[in-house]
Amino acid sequence: MKKIINAVDKVEDQMITGMVKAYPQYLKKLDCGNVVVRADKKEGKVALISGGGSGHEPAHGGFVGKGMLDAAVAGPVFTSPTPDQIYEGIKAIATDKGVLMVVKNYTGDVMNFEMAAEMAEMDGITVKHVVTNDDVAVEDSTWTTGRRGVAGTVFVHKIAGAKAEKGADLDEVQAVAQKVVDNVRTMGMAIKPCIVPAAGTPGFELGEDEMEIGIGIHGEPGTHRDALKPADEIVDTLLEKVLADIDYNGSEVAVMINGCGATPLMELFIVNNRVSDVLAEKGIKVYKTFVGEYMTSIEMEGFSISLLRLDDEMKELLDAEADTPAFKA
Amino acid sequence: MKKIINAVDKVEDQMITGMVKAYPQYLKKLDCGNVVVRADKKEGKVALISGGGSGHEPAHGGFVGKGMLDAAVAGPVFTSPTPDQIYEGIKAIATDKGVLMVVKNYTGDVMNFEMAAEMAEMDGITVKHVVTNDDVAVEDSTWTTGRRGVAGTVFVHKIAGAKAEKGADLDEVQAVAQKVVDNVRTMGMAIKPCIVPAAGTPGFELGEDEMEIGIGIHGEPGTHRDALKPADEIVDTLLEKVLADIDYNGSEVAVMINGCGATPLMELFIVNNRVSDVLAEKGIKVYKTFVGEYMTSIEMEGFSISLLRLDDEMKELLDAEADTPAFKA
Repeated sequence: MKKIINAVDKVEDQMITGMVKAYPQYLKKLDCGNVVVRADKKEGKVALISGGGSGHEPAHGGFVGKGMLDAAVAGPVFTSPTPDQIYEGIKAIATDKGVLMVVKNYTGDVMNFEMAAEMAEMDGITVKHVVTNDDVAVEDSTWTTGRRGVAGTVFVHKIAGAKAEKGADLDEVQAVAQKVVDNVRTMGMAIKPCIVPAAGTPGFELGEDEMEIGIGIHGEPGTHRDALKPADEIVDTLLEKVLADIDYNGSEVAVMINGCGATPLMELFIVNNRVSDVLAEKGIKVYKTFVGEYMTSIEMEGFSISLLRLDDEMKELLDAEADTPAFKA
Repeated sequence: MKKIINAVDKVEDQMITGMVKAYPQYLKKLDCGNVVVRADKKEGKVALISGGGSGHEPAHGGFVGKGMLDAAVAGPVFTSPTPDQIYEGIKAIATDKGVLMVVKNYTGDVMNFEMAAEMAEMDGITVKHVVTNDDVAVEDSTWTTGRRGVAGTVFVHKIAGAKAEKGADLDEVQAVAQKVVDNVRTMGMAIKPCIVPAAGTPGFELGEDEMEIGIGIHGEPGTHRDALKPADEIVDTLLEKVLADIDYNGSEVAVMINGCGATPLMELFIVNNRVSDVLAEKGIKVYKTFVGEYMTSIEMEGFSISLLRLDDEMKELLDAEADTPAFKA
């Protein structure tokens, strides 16, 4: 394992501390583990909390700030944060308008966020949640019943965060978050695995000419392993499955080409070159494109394509001001 | 070589086209090779142009937009753009207030930008330039006489771009660009090389427990090769050299922790954790920190630390509005 770290058991703490030191204008760390909250707590709005295992940076701490999240809770690498941690996060950000939890569909995350919500409700805090499950690759997998929540989650943060910032009530924020969940689909692939620091060895092995199609954000297996193909063919394979899942015909979409952590931007732009062409051929209008690292898997090399089918409300909220370390609009 | 591309000879074109397709609200591509300009040409201001070889994404096309660059010219990977290309870029953006070229100190870049300027001046366009040379690692190297221009160049784009956007004249924009050059220093390291697609093999080899200190942004050798150390020790080594080069005592600084292309954000934040502590110990106040990929070397894994010594003018210009694909303020 070759990494720029100090010690395996300090990775998460030093990372989160380093993030908060980089962005004191946005972030504040609580004293109860790796929970970051907005430096300027905003009252009178629904508060949003998300999180999960570490290793997905900039998710989720990088999306804490105006117009997106109010708190992000980070567990150990690829491991759910504890209910206690999440509960502390909820308490720190709760307002009288309530709290929305945005949870990626992994069994541990869903369970722990729900337990935290129950604890908070005993304190009189109203908590609702949505579960993201945008990955069309596989039903059920290593750590999930049903589909996995992956990069499309960032669109939920953005759009529900904007709705909350505008003063909507909890039901309205939850409804628009659920609308994003219902309209976003993602599929990914990788050519190089990642190494969980505490494990020290790759989660899977790929031959020099192999790729894994449909991979999850923790390196969970996907639909199949295949010989490495040209970028355009890979895009076609992923898009075919995404486009078959809901009816995008005649729609406007937001596109996210998400790098897995070690993928050069050069490759992501080559991917977008094809994505853009295929969507144009199919008469699907691209409203806005996002290319970069949003939901990574440490140093995995690969990418995912997310397509969000937009309506006027989602377009407006997507464009609304956001000011966070990793997402500005 | 394992990359997500279509063909070695199409990498640059498909990348730039994919970038422009992602960001039509910001970018327009000229019909003369890989030259991108602002989608909305702004008259009445000094126009800024920069560029160099491809492989440094998001530099330089990602910094084209309001408050930064007006044009970016991209040669083949790690190879200077031609004088003709640069000349076309200059002509496309020139206003009656003149053009400033921001050139990284590589012999080919400097020569070709200067030739382009001469061609433009024969058309009556006033062109001035600055040469960035922020890398303190080595004097003279594979492709450079004097010090190399590396990630600190992005601060020149930001600050000179803001000055131009405010309506300053060419001498003023050049002066503040030069002030940034005079006050920014950088040093980098790598634990994994990059592969130029047309070459197909890494530019250098590193053992499983080795790192290269002082590396350039094309994988040029640095000061020395060493056994891989803990992140904090690496930071101390780089910072010692940066801090010894100009007097940062009592200053406020902007910090850039720049990833080389394949470095997980996790590692960059661990690096910043130490950088922040060392600067605090030395009484150097951090005004703002930037962590991410700004000036990469395809899929090299490593990072650089840039410190810009600020005055009030540079602080104001650093904070001024910027709206580009890869840098928003």
